[in-house]
Amino acid sequence: MPKSLASIVLSSAAQLSLQSQLAAKLRVMIQQGHLRAGEPVPPSRQLAADLKISRNTVTLAYERLLGEGYLESRPRSGLFVCESLASIPASRPGRLAEARESQRERLASARPFRESRPDVRLFPLALWNRIRGRVLKTHRTALLQYQSEMPLGLPVLRRAIAEYLRDRRGVNCDWQQIAVTSGSQQALFMLAHVLLPPGAVAMMEDPGYRGARRAWASVGATIQPVPVDAQGLVPPTGVGKKAVLIYTTPSRQYPTGACLPVTRRSELVRWAARSGTWIIEDDYDSEFRYRYPPLPSLHGLDPNGRVIYMGTMSKTLFPSLRLGYVVLPWSVLGPFAELRSTMDDHGTLIDQATTAEFLESGAYYSHIRRCRREYGARLDTFLTAVQGTGLPLDFEHADGGINISGFLPESCDDAEWVTAMEEVDVDVRAHSALALRRVRPGLIFGFTAFDHNEIRVAVRRMGRLRSSAVRRA
Amino acid sequence: MPKSLASIVLSSAAQLSLQSQLAAKLRVMIQQGHLRAGEPVPPSRQLAADLKISRNTVTLAYERLLGEGYLESRPRSGLFVCESLASIPASRPGRLAEARESQRERLASARPFRESRPDVRLFPLALWNRIRGRVLKTHRTALLQYQSEMPLGLPVLRRAIAEYLRDRRGVNCDWQQIAVTSGSQQALFMLAHVLLPPGAVAMMEDPGYRGARRAWASVGATIQPVPVDAQGLVPPTGVGKKAVLIYTTPSRQYPTGACLPVTRRSELVRWAARSGTWIIEDDYDSEFRYRYPPLPSLHGLDPNGRVIYMGTMSKTLFPSLRLGYVVLPWSVLGPFAELRSTMDDHGTLIDQATTAEFLESGAYYSHIRRCRREYGARLDTFLTAVQGTGLPLDFEHADGGINISGFLPESCDDAEWVTAMEEVDVDVRAHSALALRRVRPGLIFGFTAFDHNEIRVAVRRMGRLRSSAVRRA
Repeated sequence: MPKSLASIVLSSAAQLSLQSQLAAKLRVMIQQGHLRAGEPVPPSRQLAADLKISRNTVTLAYERLLGEGYLESRPRSGLFVCESLASIPASRPGRLAEARESQRERLASARPFRESRPDVRLFPLALWNRIRGRVLKTHRTALLQYQSEMPLGLPVLRRAIAEYLRDRRGVNCDWQQIAVTSGSQQALFMLAHVLLPPGAVAMMEDPGYRGARRAWASVGATIQPVPVDAQGLVPPTGVGKKAVLIYTTPSRQYPTGACLPVTRRSELVRWAARSGTWIIEDDYDSEFRYRYPPLPSLHGLDPNGRVIYMGTMSKTLFPSLRLGYVVLPWSVLGPFAELRSTMDDHGTLIDQATTAEFLESGAYYSHIRRCRREYGARLDTFLTAVQGTGLPLDFEHADGGINISGFLPESCDDAEWVTAMEEVDVDVRAHSALALRRVRPGLIFGFTAFDHNEIRVAVRRMGRLRSSAVRRA
Repeated sequence: MPKSLASIVLSSAAQLSLQSQLAAKLRVMIQQGHLRAGEPVPPSRQLAADLKISRNTVTLAYERLLGEGYLESRPRSGLFVCESLASIPASRPGRLAEARESQRERLASARPFRESRPDVRLFPLALWNRIRGRVLKTHRTALLQYQSEMPLGLPVLRRAIAEYLRDRRGVNCDWQQIAVTSGSQQALFMLAHVLLPPGAVAMMEDPGYRGARRAWASVGATIQPVPVDAQGLVPPTGVGKKAVLIYTTPSRQYPTGACLPVTRRSELVRWAARSGTWIIEDDYDSEFRYRYPPLPSLHGLDPNGRVIYMGTMSKTLFPSLRLGYVVLPWSVLGPFAELRSTMDDHGTLIDQATTAEFLESGAYYSHIRRCRREYGARLDTFLTAVQGTGLPLDFEHADGGINISGFLPESCDDAEWVTAMEEVDVDVRAHSALALRRVRPGLIFGFTAFDHNEIRVAVRRMGRLRSSAVRRA
């Protein structure tokens, strides 16, 4: 056994299972070159004996690394650190081909029920490519050039988005208020930079979206958690320490799934006007409702122009397109455009033009309809299957979206449940991991990226949960 | 005449020509809706009389707005504000189609000698699309999904870039030190955020790249200009107020074009080691040299690991791809990846995989070779043509790249020359506009994006320069 492997220390008291700990340590050793490309790893029986853990734990850790492409199996010789993971000491043809192979394996490795992922297998890629070809023909090479005067995106796409938002989400805006961003994460980051001066206070739902919290924290803002109950965000009343913005997901609170009722919406909008606070409305998955249509946007309810609305194509088209959008107040447009020019000039234009045409041709709407039908059926499969396991999960807000939250009894530690789920190879996230204060325990399940069979198989594994965390519940 | 037009005030003392001022005012009036879509603009004769300027000035301003797609001409009725520019008051089919048309015109509107643009007409788009199709087939839909664990880019592209830099630029690095960014502008912005604490000092060449200056300024850094002479950056000697980083373009100083000699390179590298300063080496166009090959990178000369090397595919592939890269010290990798996750998660992956394959297949190198041949010939055409004009422009560093600087006699005001050039519809930029202190006057000409005929025609217009700025020289 390589000397470095003997140095592995695993802790049975840790948050992560032994299997996850071992996989993580091996991953780091490979990344840092302590385990070198092409080197064999010890047989599972031997490593298990050396580390005094069960052989099954080692086997499972190895299997995970195989799936991730860190290890490769050679017939009749055992497991080796993947050749293509070495830093390349000199040009060697063939290395890149290997890297590509192992990358393909790694790229495909998401497990149920990783949250917030659409099923990209449903995406009409051939149609997208045809539209892309048409768009390139129309614009010829102009789409390849710098368009530094368009930091907010191609006008044709901004118009198409404005029209879509007006028709579908009740957002009334001029197309020039639309900024196209590299995914909604960029919109959050940019809003943080444009709106929050040093030392400012940003309010956000608790539990709430970590990407938003990271954005506010990146400019040093103080984050003030706002409680969430069964109806979603509890609108603030007093003024207290004045917040510059409040971040909310009214259509379907992330992660709990609660839809903010109209009375609370009005309260929130009135409070924002009184206190001069911006409301950041993140409408991240309202395209996917299976029983009832979503309420129109908060933006459409607000006569005072305090709502900044944002959305994403990551769920409706595909995530690696990196395409989000935000509806900006006129006063914010200038600084936002200025920042974008400084940050990365502008986005990828062929994709923007293709998306515009995809919207205009109606293909966008048919794709969403098709996904909605399929995702709705998957949600039923998921809920039925979970019911069969007898696990104490309560799906209170069951009208979907792309994730669904299962609440746990108050006595449960949802972080322990995540670890227990990890042991049966199920990937979920705990409400507590998304909160600054103590919140009602729960787990988020992303059900849209997995087909009926994958869902049933993974839920069956959940049924075998035997950890102490679960027995306590 | 619409009342609003009567309110236009032009100043003959302003930096911009009357024609440019008029075009700018009209553009703003259209954008703000004071001139409404579909509304006619007054005949040039009438507007000229009303504003007491020459009719030619009005005609030229109108022509520019026609080219930009703000105005449209209707047979036998004159000029109108383009219909498709209206904010759309309600869904109206056909509007988007019009917007697309007028966008196409606007997208194509760069004039000689706008700097830093490759000729995207030379790009082998059909081959690129074939490679893209192949890559999509290989990776199937995995390339469409989130890959949040890869904020620094696809491993296969990072490896291909590392190999390219080792072979062509003498950059020795591990592929894991490569970060793929949304153009080199994002690399600058991120380096500013990761390296510069509040109140830090950033040194940079003066004159120098404005995108870099904007990046340092965006985090509130104090910018300390470093003089540039005929050999490029003058290496600092003392330590003085300690700078965190120094930004330089040693291969071909931007904008002057000077190549930093080896002696200065060693001095700079030694100084950086002594003072603990990061050197940001921006190698933005070293692929294009027409007479002599470029010197290897500063990065390869530095035994102390103080150089952060960056480059871009905007010139070698196409700008709207938004693909740059940076070679990071190990200590900076973690914070850089963290920031990217917070900023926009990761870049567009289909493009990254396509670029990797484009590099590996050798298509990248053939394309660069082809462009180098063609750009070299264009440079000759440009230099020969300018010589014929008798203008007092001195092309001291004539080995190209994608721009070339013409120095002016010390008595000239290069900003006035820019205005004079604008009058004959030539788009250049002044050295003084890129500097914080007084620098040797000069103009930058981008010659690569225009074919031989476009170059000759534009230079002929330059020959007609009759403004006072030019007569004084």
